[in-house]
Amino acid sequence: MQIERLTSLLVAVQSGETSIEEALAALRDLPYETVDDYARVDNHRALRTGLPEVIYGAGKTADQVAQLLQVLTARNGYALATRVTPEQAAAVQVQVPDVRYHTPARILTLGEVPLPSGQGPYVCVATAGTSDLPVAEEAALLLELWGQRVVRVNDVGVAGVHRLLAQRTTLANAALVIVVAGMEGALASVVGGLIGVPVIAVPTSVGYGASFGGLAALLAMLNSCAPGVAVVNIDNGFGAAALAMRIMRGVR
Amino acid sequence: MQIERLTSLLVAVQSGETSIEEALAALRDLPYETVDDYARVDNHRALRTGLPEVIYGAGKTADQVAQLLQVLTARNGYALATRVTPEQAAAVQVQVPDVRYHTPARILTLGEVPLPSGQGPYVCVATAGTSDLPVAEEAALLLELWGQRVVRVNDVGVAGVHRLLAQRTTLANAALVIVVAGMEGALASVVGGLIGVPVIAVPTSVGYGASFGGLAALLAMLNSCAPGVAVVNIDNGFGAAALAMRIMRGVR
Amino acid sequence: MQIERLTSLLVAVQSGETSIEEALAALRDLPYETVDDYARVDNHRALRTGLPEVIYGAGKTADQVAQLLQVLTARNGYALATRVTPEQAAAVQVQVPDVRYHTPARILTLGEVPLPSGQGPYVCVATAGTSDLPVAEEAALLLELWGQRVVRVNDVGVAGVHRLLAQRTTLANAALVIVVAGMEGALASVVGGLIGVPVIAVPTSVGYGASFGGLAALLAMLNSCAPGVAVVNIDNGFGAAALAMRIMRGVR
Amino acid sequence: MQIERLTSLLVAVQSGETSIEEALAALRDLPYETVDDYARVDNHRALRTGLPEVIYGAGKTADQVAQLLQVLTARNGYALATRVTPEQAAAVQVQVPDVRYHTPARILTLGEVPLPSGQGPYVCVATAGTSDLPVAEEAALLLELWGQRVVRVNDVGVAGVHRLLAQRTTLANAALVIVVAGMEGALASVVGGLIGVPVIAVPTSVGYGASFGGLAALLAMLNSCAPGVAVVNIDNGFGAAALAMRIMRGVR
Amino acid sequence: MQIERLTSLLVAVQSGETSIEEALAALRDLPYETVDDYARVDNHRALRTGLPEVIYGAGKTADQVAQLLQVLTARNGYALATRVTPEQAAAVQVQVPDVRYHTPARILTLGEVPLPSGQGPYVCVATAGTSDLPVAEEAALLLELWGQRVVRVNDVGVAGVHRLLAQRTTLANAALVIVVAGMEGALASVVGGLIGVPVIAVPTSVGYGASFGGLAALLAMLNSCAPGVAVVNIDNGFGAAALAMRIMRGVR
Amino acid sequence: MQIERLTSLLVAVQSGETSIEEALAALRDLPYETVDDYARVDNHRALRTGLPEVIYGAGKTADQVAQLLQVLTARNGYALATRVTPEQAAAVQVQVPDVRYHTPARILTLGEVPLPSGQGPYVCVATAGTSDLPVAEEAALLLELWGQRVVRVNDVGVAGVHRLLAQRTTLANAALVIVVAGMEGALASVVGGLIGVPVIAVPTSVGYGASFGGLAALLAMLNSCAPGVAVVNIDNGFGAAALAMRIMRGVR
Amino acid sequence: MQIERLTSLLVAVQSGETSIEEALAALRDLPYETVDDYARVDNHRALRTGLPEVIYGAGKTADQVAQLLQVLTARNGYALATRVTPEQAAAVQVQVPDVRYHTPARILTLGEVPLPSGQGPYVCVATAGTSDLPVAEEAALLLELWGQRVVRVNDVGVAGVHRLLAQRTTLANAALVIVVAGMEGALASVVGGLIGVPVIAVPTSVGYGASFGGLAALLAMLNSCAPGVAVVNIDNGFGAAALAMRIMRGVR
Amino acid sequence: MQIERLTSLLVAVQSGETSIEEALAALRDLPYETVDDYARVDNHRALRTGLPEVIYGAGKTADQVAQLLQVLTARNGYALATRVTPEQAAAVQVQVPDVRYHTPARILTLGEVPLPSGQGPYVCVATAGTSDLPVAEEAALLLELWGQRVVRVNDVGVAGVHRLLAQRTTLANAALVIVVAGMEGALASVVGGLIGVPVIAVPTSVGYGASFGGLAALLAMLNSCAPGVAVVNIDNGFGAAALAMRIMRGVR
Repeated sequence: MQIERLTSLLVAVQSGETSIEEALAALRDLPYETVDDYARVDNHRALRTGLPEVIYGAGKTADQVAQLLQVLTARNGYALATRVTPEQAAAVQVQVPDVRYHTPARILTLGEVPLPSGQGPYVCVATAGTSDLPVAEEAALLLELWGQRVVRVNDVGVAGVHRLLAQRTTLANAALVIVVAGMEGALASVVGGLIGVPVIAVPTSVGYGASFGGLAALLAMLNSCAPGVAVVNIDNGFGAAALAMRIMRGVR
Repeated sequence: MQIERLTSLLVAVQSGETSIEEALAALRDLPYETVDDYARVDNHRALRTGLPEVIYGAGKTADQVAQLLQVLTARNGYALATRVTPEQAAAVQVQVPDVRYHTPARILTLGEVPLPSGQGPYVCVATAGTSDLPVAEEAALLLELWGQRVVRVNDVGVAGVHRLLAQRTTLANAALVIVVAGMEGALASVVGGLIGVPVIAVPTSVGYGASFGGLAALLAMLNSCAPGVAVVNIDNGFGAAALAMRIMRGVR
Repeated sequence: MQIERLTSLLVAVQSGETSIEEALAALRDLPYETVDDYARVDNHRALRTGLPEVIYGAGKTADQVAQLLQVLTARNGYALATRVTPEQAAAVQVQVPDVRYHTPARILTLGEVPLPSGQGPYVCVATAGTSDLPVAEEAALLLELWGQRVVRVNDVGVAGVHRLLAQRTTLANAALVIVVAGMEGALASVVGGLIGVPVIAVPTSVGYGASFGGLAALLAMLNSCAPGVAVVNIDNGFGAAALAMRIMRGVR
Repeated sequence: MQIERLTSLLVAVQSGETSIEEALAALRDLPYETVDDYARVDNHRALRTGLPEVIYGAGKTADQVAQLLQVLTARNGYALATRVTPEQAAAVQVQVPDVRYHTPARILTLGEVPLPSGQGPYVCVATAGTSDLPVAEEAALLLELWGQRVVRVNDVGVAGVHRLLAQRTTLANAALVIVVAGMEGALASVVGGLIGVPVIAVPTSVGYGASFGGLAALLAMLNSCAPGVAVVNIDNGFGAAALAMRIMRGVR
Repeated sequence: MQIERLTSLLVAVQSGETSIEEALAALRDLPYETVDDYARVDNHRALRTGLPEVIYGAGKTADQVAQLLQVLTARNGYALATRVTPEQAAAVQVQVPDVRYHTPARILTLGEVPLPSGQGPYVCVATAGTSDLPVAEEAALLLELWGQRVVRVNDVGVAGVHRLLAQRTTLANAALVIVVAGMEGALASVVGGLIGVPVIAVPTSVGYGASFGGLAALLAMLNSCAPGVAVVNIDNGFGAAALAMRIMRGVR
Repeated sequence: MQIERLTSLLVAVQSGETSIEEALAALRDLPYETVDDYARVDNHRALRTGLPEVIYGAGKTADQVAQLLQVLTARNGYALATRVTPEQAAAVQVQVPDVRYHTPARILTLGEVPLPSGQGPYVCVATAGTSDLPVAEEAALLLELWGQRVVRVNDVGVAGVHRLLAQRTTLANAALVIVVAGMEGALASVVGGLIGVPVIAVPTSVGYGASFGGLAALLAMLNSCAPGVAVVNIDNGFGAAALAMRIMRGVR
Repeated sequence: MQIERLTSLLVAVQSGETSIEEALAALRDLPYETVDDYARVDNHRALRTGLPEVIYGAGKTADQVAQLLQVLTARNGYALATRVTPEQAAAVQVQVPDVRYHTPARILTLGEVPLPSGQGPYVCVATAGTSDLPVAEEAALLLELWGQRVVRVNDVGVAGVHRLLAQRTTLANAALVIVVAGMEGALASVVGGLIGVPVIAVPTSVGYGASFGGLAALLAMLNSCAPGVAVVNIDNGFGAAALAMRIMRGVR
Repeated sequence: MQIERLTSLLVAVQSGETSIEEALAALRDLPYETVDDYARVDNHRALRTGLPEVIYGAGKTADQVAQLLQVLTARNGYALATRVTPEQAAAVQVQVPDVRYHTPARILTLGEVPLPSGQGPYVCVATAGTSDLPVAEEAALLLELWGQRVVRVNDVGVAGVHRLLAQRTTLANAALVIVVAGMEGALASVVGGLIGVPVIAVPTSVGYGASFGGLAALLAMLNSCAPGVAVVNIDNGFGAAALAMRIMRGVR
């Protein structure tokens, strides 16, 4: 990347155009400059991690969300914001009428979002109950917006294990499965034992009392008796989607 | 029960044999005495709660266990001690050669223990894995020693849900099911959703790391998405058996 | 259930109407199809677990609650929603004037709810203090709406143990007792020691400071020195009622 | 106390024996010196807090315990060490044959320990179960060694509330009651509701699983529904005795 | 108390007016009736515990508070409600103009509240900072309303230990000291080491972050290196006052 | 699999050899039998999840480990046991001299273990410090024993971030990276931000005090600011390897 | 400071103007009076700890903040209030139009605030992400208002470690570095390993789910593998600034 | 540092000795090589952080400790190992008779350790009680071994605040103070309020019950009401010494 600059510097040294001292001064800062370059590349973290920039909407004003959406859309053709409340979404739409609000995923999009084809390997997103949908849809919709095919399997909590078994084929044919469950979070263990592909478990804060804000589901998933279950933070649909993208990029 | 004493007191008052003052003095303490009676009956808590006395072996010396076993056997014809380590058991056997040590239940018995018949309603004791056996057997053996028929279903953890489903009939025909599971404790939810009889969930300390000594299983069971699951303390096989006895006494 | 289909298939094989290959193809999917059937039956979980469907009102919009109540009433003749706030209830009543709101149970009903007779075995629901009433009434009212006779014993917290003792007969004659208590949750232990029938302990989040949202009462109940106490989640009146129904179905 | 020194300094100033400057220099350090005096008095903390020095045996070598016992006995006529294991005690006795080891209180004494009279106000020390005895006896024996009359009420856990009621008079006539209980710690609430004198609640680490080393009992006691219960640290028999002494010193 | 009834019954038996059978029937229920009496006496718990009834305002409607204040005032001449917010207080005052609202104690009073004299033994209520005042004043005002003399020492947190030392005399002359402190709660240890009278430590929820709602102060106070400190629940000014009353009743 | 049995049954029906009723009886149990078959297949969970059976050595006697190793070796040609202490290993070797003990992985093998080739995609296993080696080697060695190529990068904790950067190429060229770190567990975040392939974070119990047995590292990894990091239980090298296998099977 | 008073007292003794007794009485109270002096000096804690008084705005009314700002400005020429919400600030400004509100530091100032010069040793304040800015700016702005030069390095979270390395020089040349980070708090370890000057780590409550209000970052920082990192409370920008001032006062 | 190599490369280019392509290849890796250099320097982390290498003895075999001590002594003239048990020390001494074991600091040294002079700025290490000595001495001895003058102030826990005040001068004249305290950890707050120099608070695991292994002291120190107290991990004497060194290097 810096080859051209180095080459012309060396040519100038060879030709005598540039003195040793001048060249030395230019080269002395090279490592740091490289680091700076690298750091600047970091602004395009999408290139390194394969994930386009996403706006985290929580705690931002409608003004901030609107402006960021427009800036990123100008740069990339489209933009996404997660964790946007209906109130935030309505306020942004006043300023940017073209935005589209996706419930229950709480995602706001602007511009021409690329759509995944209906073919090829897919990620299965499975929920234990309907209360888990906001987190599951955050993951599922992000994956679709990032071009990844998704198949949803909803409301297959372990209290009705036959409903889950009826979806065995869909689960087994997926390239990976994201399991989203609150309360006791047992769905991750059952799915992890049914299939051999990677399972990403997302505990949710669905529940009350001794669920302690999702702690019960989190601990259950970390202690899954089915070996090889990946766990992310409570309610972290975004993290599950990002992990799924890391894995899917390597998939045949 | 005190009718005879009261009658003779009143007869004595009627006959003038006992003065009003003397009768008053005798009667004044009646409430308390009754309470005392009640308290004395309490020494036979077995009558009130339906459970014979059990020796809790943990922390007792072999001498203490040996002596208590002999005293209770003299009174009731047999006696039981729970939470007895193999070392304790061996030391007791030196003193009382007739004791019998039951592994993995860690129970020591002395005398002619009554055996349940192989007919009628039964309690199903189900374990997630073989490491849960000591707790499960503490419950199962206690129930049998208390005259209750038991059917065991072992190693049906949710990571292999079809092994569990293969036991569906045994579970569904039980009068109640005790589920013993460590790690993520998900078995309680799956069983609770399969059947309609009472389910007693016993979390165990099986696991490591984020199992936090059984806390993960305990929280999972308390948050079971299958409604109507009864939870007892971690590793509390005794408590599960006692609760089962309370329920079974009312069973048709 | 599938007998008819199997019979006609076999008849067709016998008659030569259907070839061995065709019959084989039809039979190959039988296990899975059966599972599907089973799963469909699961929509009537009431049949399997003995509990009619109940709408969980928390987090639902008034529209959703109103619609679900009407759908279930059309199917079953009546419907129930739990955890309904007064505000939700008022908003539902605008749309469905016939609903009835039960305070302090926070339950909304529609249609002809069957009433339990005043005879036969009863569940005793006991509270430590008046602040525990919403949770206790959720349990008590659900039991009554499900046809179960209930007797209430309120405000018998252990700080005035004689008030509790005065209710000894009511407690001892119950088929089972649900104990609802916050703060230190000691009522479960005392009741568990007084009587021999099953005791279901419901910790509540009543308290402040080191009650940590009901954790103090939960831990106390799990560590009850009276053996055989069943514990459910904090504030889980619904779970206590469901567990009671599981037990009462087996009661003589 | 410093009056004499000040007087002679002032006399010397008056007489001209000491110059103003010299007196000033002496006086300038007076506040700090006073503080030093005060601090030195602190070595006799017994005077200020009414409690003689006690040796905390845990973690000390037998040599250290033996030496400290002898030093304090030389100074005060007798000495006490708490939290002494049987092994420590045996090792100390090899060096100091006159020591006396008190089980289950785990206290080692040397010298002529004053005995309380059998008259006057007494502290009642009540335990829930026999496993609580080491902690209770630490408190009870310390009180007696400090000259305070004690009455013991053992094994009155709330699972047999009538045994507790049978001791009502002993509890009610005490100047204060120390309640020692593990597991769910409910005894403190029941006693606190029965009587009007100060109640000191000592949670113990008796229990397992969700007792979390005494946390369950500690939280229960802090949340007692009987108002006015004093709580000390888990297993802190010494602290209970110290608090009792602070209170008893003011008692009529 | 039942002496009269028993005497006339016995006289009637002696005179033949009442038959043995009739007397037996009357006497058979005596213990239970006594318990009932006792339970009824329990409605006057004030007599037993020395504390008049107090209305706990938190979570009650203004209507409820207003009505309870009037009922209790009619019975006792005055009444108190704790944990009343300014909004509640204003709403109550619309209905009962004579109530008086005490800030920062958040206490509402009605009727002629007895005032303690300015003489005799006093309780010292000490706070670490001004944010602890609502809890401290709840305790202090309750004590005064119950007739107990109180001396306040405010803002003597340990970060300025000389301000505390300047109050040494006031602390040392108190019959007992209530220490109210949030954050690290160190004031209890320092005061406990300065004086020999009983110290009641009230942790408050003042603080943020790792104070975890008062947990830091609570744990610190339970682990006080000054022996003999009594701890109550977080923010529990009422409990501290009740404990102080239990102790003060026995004070010379 | 059951095709043959079904075909012969149908042929017998077609030929009239078997009646409709007999065939019906045989077919009626088919679904359950199939489930049983499935369950039996479950004994070969290796087929379904791609992982050969592994013996969990913790808590097993040397006899048990020795026997299981021999049984599995007879069946599969080789066998593995994890979490084997040096003492267990030595005792097993007395009975089965051919076993090989791998330190620091604490793995015992028997038979001809297949070796991965040195080519193709590899898993990088990175540790923060040398104390993390037992957990990391459990993962690395299992992967190798399961035929997966592994590259190790040790001692690259974030306190010397340049040591980590020096390994950038090795990390970036891996198909996935397993990060093993105790204490503050920060390595997972830094690695997760450097590369785009899947990152599996294994918190270890390395540390003391406020590491709380690995809780600090676990929480840190769950909260990683680098999106898409998979977390497994504390010290769970086995789980990390199993998850890696699930992912690697899908890798190009 | 009291020299004059002492001198004149001694002169009066020397001259006989004051008797020994009178002098003695005056001197007897000297220590306490000195303590009082010291305590009074404590009102100027700024002198002792080097920090001017700061108003803690949280929980105060606008009236209180306005008044305190004016009082302190009258005394010191300027005043500061921390933790002031925008709503509070607006309400204060109505009363005191001259105040200036600093976002995102949430600090309100009044009067002529001294400005640090742009020369000499500086404190570097580094943040992991933009959400950490309010806490970081509280620290940075306080330091500047107290006259300390500050250099800010923002958004250098460890997920993009090269952005951090690009700031190496700024970090290494600082006299000390304050690291402000939420989520997994790893920045403290990386910075602590890069440089040798003191590092003050401030965990923030930025995050959700298993961040548990900043607990994850707090534990991570306490377990930093880079030795010698100072930790303060969650979100405690004020504490970090105060600690920085303590250190900077001693810096060459 | 690399100037020479760069210069000769450029000279070779200028002279035509090296072609542009060769020079380009050499320069292309320069940044990474630099990083490698930097990383290699990292092996001498002492240079960067000012702390010589220290051997962490916990969990190491005597062989490992002996070898590391000898290697480091050969390199630096002396070496230190921390957290060495008496048993480890004795075993090391068999191999390396010249080692010296320092109790209670649990530090093992080899070679000629440099000694600090008795002049100049000093670090004050203060302990609350004698049980805190091992942690305090780990810090104090490390500082002395690193050439830093130390003054010890022992047994100044806040329960005897005048003993602490008697040491006011020693504390106030220190360049910084390390406060080591277990139980409630209040000493940090009191010292922090007395003096203006940096205070490093080290919570210790001294205590039992609700001290929860040092958690109580840790939380107390994090919530210190004295602003500007630096906290390190529980029992982390090493960390306190390292932080002290970071600060002392900048001290005038």
